[in-house]
Amino acid sequence: MADVIANMSMSIDGFVADPQDGIDHLFGWFGNGDVEVPTAVEWATFKTSEASAKMLRDAMDNVGALITGRRLFNLTQGWGGAHPMGVPVFVVTHEEPADWPHPDAPFTFVTDGLESAVEQAKKVAGDKNVAVASTTIAQQCLDLGLLDGIQVDLIPVLLGDGVRFFGNLDKTITLTGPEVVEGTGVTHLSYRVTRGA
Amino acid sequence: MADVIANMSMSIDGFVADPQDGIDHLFGWFGNGDVEVPTAVEWATFKTSEASAKMLRDAMDNVGALITGRRLFNLTQGWGGAHPMGVPVFVVTHEEPADWPHPDAPFTFVTDGLESAVEQAKKVAGDKNVAVASTTIAQQCLDLGLLDGIQVDLIPVLLGDGVRFFGNLDKTITLTGPEVVEGTGVTHLSYRVTRGA
Repeated sequence: MADVIANMSMSIDGFVADPQDGIDHLFGWFGNGDVEVPTAVEWATFKTSEASAKMLRDAMDNVGALITGRRLFNLTQGWGGAHPMGVPVFVVTHEEPADWPHPDAPFTFVTDGLESAVEQAKKVAGDKNVAVASTTIAQQCLDLGLLDGIQVDLIPVLLGDGVRFFGNLDKTITLTGPEVVEGTGVTHLSYRVTRGA
Repeated sequence: MADVIANMSMSIDGFVADPQDGIDHLFGWFGNGDVEVPTAVEWATFKTSEASAKMLRDAMDNVGALITGRRLFNLTQGWGGAHPMGVPVFVVTHEEPADWPHPDAPFTFVTDGLESAVEQAKKVAGDKNVAVASTTIAQQCLDLGLLDGIQVDLIPVLLGDGVRFFGNLDKTITLTGPEVVEGTGVTHLSYRVTRGA
């Protein structure tokens, strides 16, 4: 059964981007090592520490679908129609883009809500996990009890301001873990969401 | 030379207390283990995992003075005149309390500003560290370039709301580290503040 897992690179004060959506301070670890980790796209090959590379390879092997929000989809211009994870992408949105230039890409625009997107993504993922790549979607999944795991790639920086990973939670949520992997310029922390907390 | 180190138990979403100043979700690790760690006061003996106990003993051996703000001092009623760390306490405040019932306790009320408090605390600490036990004081120390280290005792919980460890920083601050100690129900992360970032 697929788990739904939110994963972000986050500053110690909780931000996943600066106020201008910049990620320079947070994404350095994807390129600060010697170990190449190919992705599903030519324009993105990670170069990380061995510890981070193993974690990334494991994650890519185990993810079968990805859910994102419309804001991140727009910011990345839909990853040019091919997400680095190489899996089908479900975009939660109020309406389909009118001018999507990659109609054959494995992108599904879900206009009937987050729960529908999770259901569709799980079906496609099969035994693999569903990755959530969006702060607002992750928060809504938490509020709805739809999230099974949280992976924080914790970066040794204080941004002071920006976009929060967890900005608007309705309630206290207890977790178990973490499993810790120490990379270079990043600490990978994997938590499980405790149900019924 | 004494380092100035801020230390807090923090939720993954960055809170050191809930909106009612409650710390029940964050301080459980001080009592969830088998290893007793006596403090300087009878009313506080920690019972933690061996990993956390070693970290706590090291911290207590290496702290020579403590700086706090007036809000935490009031909340704790001045720790009854004896802080568990067993070191002199410097309280940054606009005016001395009129009715402080422990005039002989090693508490100094500093009314001429944070930099004066840091200077006085460093002098008393000698070769040992100065601990900062207050979010607002820690933030002001960061903004003034007075902080050398940050220890986050990261708790596997999302509080959703409350008092932030780092709420109002003026700028981006880069850190190095962390040193990681895995406790039970807590991950101890020790960072160094990078100067001139």
